[in-house]
Amino acid sequence: MRVLVTGAAGMLGSRLVKRLLEQGVAGRAVTAMDLFDAFPCTPSDAPGVEIRTFQGDIADLEICEHLAASKPDFVFHLASIVSGEAETNFHLGYRVNLQGGLALLEGLRAHGNRPRFVFSSSGAVFGGPVPDLIDDDFAPTPLTSYGSQKLIVEALVQDYTRKGFIDGVSIRLPAICIRPGKPNKAASGFYSGIIREPLNGVEAVVPVSRDIVHSSASPRSAVGFLIHAAEIDSDRIGHRRSLNMPGVFCTVGEQIEAMARVAGPQYLRLLRDEIDPAIERIVSTWPKGYRATRAKDLGFTAEANFDEIIRIYIEEEMPDGLPPVSNR
Amino acid sequence: MRVLVTGAAGMLGSRLVKRLLEQGVAGRAVTAMDLFDAFPCTPSDAPGVEIRTFQGDIADLEICEHLAASKPDFVFHLASIVSGEAETNFHLGYRVNLQGGLALLEGLRAHGNRPRFVFSSSGAVFGGPVPDLIDDDFAPTPLTSYGSQKLIVEALVQDYTRKGFIDGVSIRLPAICIRPGKPNKAASGFYSGIIREPLNGVEAVVPVSRDIVHSSASPRSAVGFLIHAAEIDSDRIGHRRSLNMPGVFCTVGEQIEAMARVAGPQYLRLLRDEIDPAIERIVSTWPKGYRATRAKDLGFTAEANFDEIIRIYIEEEMPDGLPPVSNR
Repeated sequence: MRVLVTGAAGMLGSRLVKRLLEQGVAGRAVTAMDLFDAFPCTPSDAPGVEIRTFQGDIADLEICEHLAASKPDFVFHLASIVSGEAETNFHLGYRVNLQGGLALLEGLRAHGNRPRFVFSSSGAVFGGPVPDLIDDDFAPTPLTSYGSQKLIVEALVQDYTRKGFIDGVSIRLPAICIRPGKPNKAASGFYSGIIREPLNGVEAVVPVSRDIVHSSASPRSAVGFLIHAAEIDSDRIGHRRSLNMPGVFCTVGEQIEAMARVAGPQYLRLLRDEIDPAIERIVSTWPKGYRATRAKDLGFTAEANFDEIIRIYIEEEMPDGLPPVSNR
Repeated sequence: MRVLVTGAAGMLGSRLVKRLLEQGVAGRAVTAMDLFDAFPCTPSDAPGVEIRTFQGDIADLEICEHLAASKPDFVFHLASIVSGEAETNFHLGYRVNLQGGLALLEGLRAHGNRPRFVFSSSGAVFGGPVPDLIDDDFAPTPLTSYGSQKLIVEALVQDYTRKGFIDGVSIRLPAICIRPGKPNKAASGFYSGIIREPLNGVEAVVPVSRDIVHSSASPRSAVGFLIHAAEIDSDRIGHRRSLNMPGVFCTVGEQIEAMARVAGPQYLRLLRDEIDPAIERIVSTWPKGYRATRAKDLGFTAEANFDEIIRIYIEEEMPDGLPPVSNR
């Protein structure tokens, strides 16, 4: 069974690839995998699995047609310019996020095998004013180019599904916490940084008011959402192909309190509040949380609280445990 | 003051051009007008107004850049493949309705003067199940390619407006009744045909159940919506740039009763019920009506009832009055 993953070199993409190689999808083992990214992919060895890597421009229709011609059974489309960068580089954001999605769908329409197509969308499709808990019928009105591009590809996924060219599902991810590694250009990056940096003994800036509410899930849950979206029965989804994912609904302040509970109060001293108006402006337009009624009915699950999200980070990313931080 | 109209040869486009030449827009006279269409435009003479006509492919970026370089103050983007045709010719629908809108917006981003941009969208952005009266926050989930393409261009209009490249408004038109002339390939065409044909002494088929509810407005109101959308103050619109237009909310049966009231019961004999499953499937997914709260607050108005819509048709399109129809 063949799987195509775009954005396979990314934080979620690489974890998704690892998990797919370990557990397969829909009860079947992966026997062939095509990994696409703008950056080099370095998948782990998987004996008996044919792995091909492609580096290029997702908006290049020729590459997409080539990928589609292998007739993948499952496509995970994660390739994307992140929110902050799509905001500063308008042309690049539209090229990768809109024309890239369109090229991939056109490739599959021309050469594909009507694969299950899982699109990694985002809560950024919503823009304020929004209710505190957005229900499944609430209209998306993005306030970023990134959110607009995600919304447009969702509309394409729905129409290409309706026409029978793919069998698509778009999942609107909450903020993914705690991202390992270096900060990226996503405006939501600080949600991870304000926990990750202190846990690693590094100072961090809280760039927004601590009472900003948001919804988040661990990278482990996000990979779980993607795989579950590939496995649920098409008839159960119905014709509305975009799903708001569940997540932990809390304030930035509550996130920080969870860190003090899980790791200890000494980490709090590594945080400094300094509002960044550009970041605050972007994230203040994002939704706080979703009811995610349809997603929960379809079996999508996230963590129960932020403490759990922090424990997953320590377990997965800090094999040597927490570094000592002075109590003074 | 310069105006660009795309789709200027169409039913609404040609009426819009005529009205703009007569009354101007936003209190100013039109001194220059660029008319674009895939078909030839034959505007009426307007002394003192520089009128240029362009025939071509709206998805051709070079043409769009040329049109934008004249720095129109107002752009009315009506060019579109209609719903029925976009459903049967997938590639053409996406080329004209999506890539065409994108090319025009890209032209204006590169060369334009941040014009007020009025986009003629449609209630086809909604797809069932929907509430009987859709409110302004209800999520669009189209069930046609046409509706998907309109939704995508709405998202572009909103983002290009937010970024300051245009000052855009998208108006979601109800069914336009009564369209004069020959039937077109719009799935909504019969809403006009079942009145227009009998009034002209011709038999017509009612291709859907008479209890189907829909929302409609006259071509006169639709042109009024377009011009009003060009004139309202940008600050009053806010960042949500798509507006559900008001209309007359009635069943197909009530439309027919209105015809009997306004023109006489003898016209009823020219109607024959014969369900067309393809048309019924498309229109049954469309919304029945909108609350249109925001649009009404912003001063958009439609007819009060279907009788009025029929009287406007007779007044505008039948200067010699109704032809005699036997009472037997």
